[in-house]
Amino acid sequence: MTGERRRPGRRPGSADTRGDIVTAARKIFAEKGFDKATIRGIAREAGVDPALVHHYFDTKEGIFVAALQLPVDPSKVLPLVMEGPREQIGERVARFVLTMTADAQAREPILALMRSAMTNDKIVAMIREFMTHALLRRVAAGLGVPLVRMEAAFAQMFGVVLMRYVLRVEPVASVDVEELVALLAPTIQRYLGEA
Amino acid sequence: MTGERRRPGRRPGSADTRGDIVTAARKIFAEKGFDKATIRGIAREAGVDPALVHHYFDTKEGIFVAALQLPVDPSKVLPLVMEGPREQIGERVARFVLTMTADAQAREPILALMRSAMTNDKIVAMIREFMTHALLRRVAAGLGVPLVRMEAAFAQMFGVVLMRYVLRVEPVASVDVEELVALLAPTIQRYLGEA
Repeated sequence: MTGERRRPGRRPGSADTRGDIVTAARKIFAEKGFDKATIRGIAREAGVDPALVHHYFDTKEGIFVAALQLPVDPSKVLPLVMEGPREQIGERVARFVLTMTADAQAREPILALMRSAMTNDKIVAMIREFMTHALLRRVAAGLGVPLVRMEAAFAQMFGVVLMRYVLRVEPVASVDVEELVALLAPTIQRYLGEA
Repeated sequence: MTGERRRPGRRPGSADTRGDIVTAARKIFAEKGFDKATIRGIAREAGVDPALVHHYFDTKEGIFVAALQLPVDPSKVLPLVMEGPREQIGERVARFVLTMTADAQAREPILALMRSAMTNDKIVAMIREFMTHALLRRVAAGLGVPLVRMEAAFAQMFGVVLMRYVLRVEPVASVDVEELVALLAPTIQRYLGEA
């Protein structure tokens, strides 16, 4: 039997390092929630330099998205949804949510997270903090609307996604995306259309 | 040791009989779903006459509501929500849902059912069938609106209840019922206000 050899040429930045950071992040987010978790704490848990965490994931939101295998990083997508004519914000939001969730690979991690949230208070807290910071407050501030209006808009889209893909109630489970966009866009427009 | 004695004076209609029917109904609904379950099948499972099931619970919806400890029987409540001026249907629906779910004793069985639904396909099917027959189709037909509009209205209220009581996102978790009614009523009105 040969002793353990140091592999030459393994640089910081290998797939393992990234994997170690993601594993550490899952543990830290679950223990501390999103607000109290820090990049420094995640780096310590993973045994790497905080600069390396920044290098891979940029922000704490970025690590969260990777750790929970979310399909989109809100901070990357929101600017795209929010730019464009304000009088079409409802249509853009409705179409984005319905198009994104139409992809099972994008939808499943979100539904898995919701399943855990329904039965685990720590996961609820983590999701709530992430949603509030990465999504709800950011959009509300960007559009200049009260947070409760943003939450009403979110609730409408969230409820439709649950009825379409979890409860699978007809006809909402099978009508096409554009029919739902036409039905829902005026609602979202009313909540988000005016400051 | 005395042998088993027949208790005199125990009539059909004792608390035990009702309990037996409820227990049998839970089993039958879980096995067959709402649509395929029958009063006759539930009576057989409970070892009682079908007439006795009718006597206690009136309809299959009534047994379902009792078996799942739901806070309200839609068939009893809906007429109250649907009567009154059509131009205030949105306000009445929003206020009814928010007032009912403000009561933890009424809310908890519904949330418990949703928790099970998120992880159990048989329960999803049972809820879907009950919702469709006892609630969604009935209201849509009563108001003369397409089913998908009724489902959009349901999704709005359902999403708000989940954000308020499961995710507990602020401010929607703590604003008072009347502020939410004012925010949501126009949405429900748009879906249900016109045939």
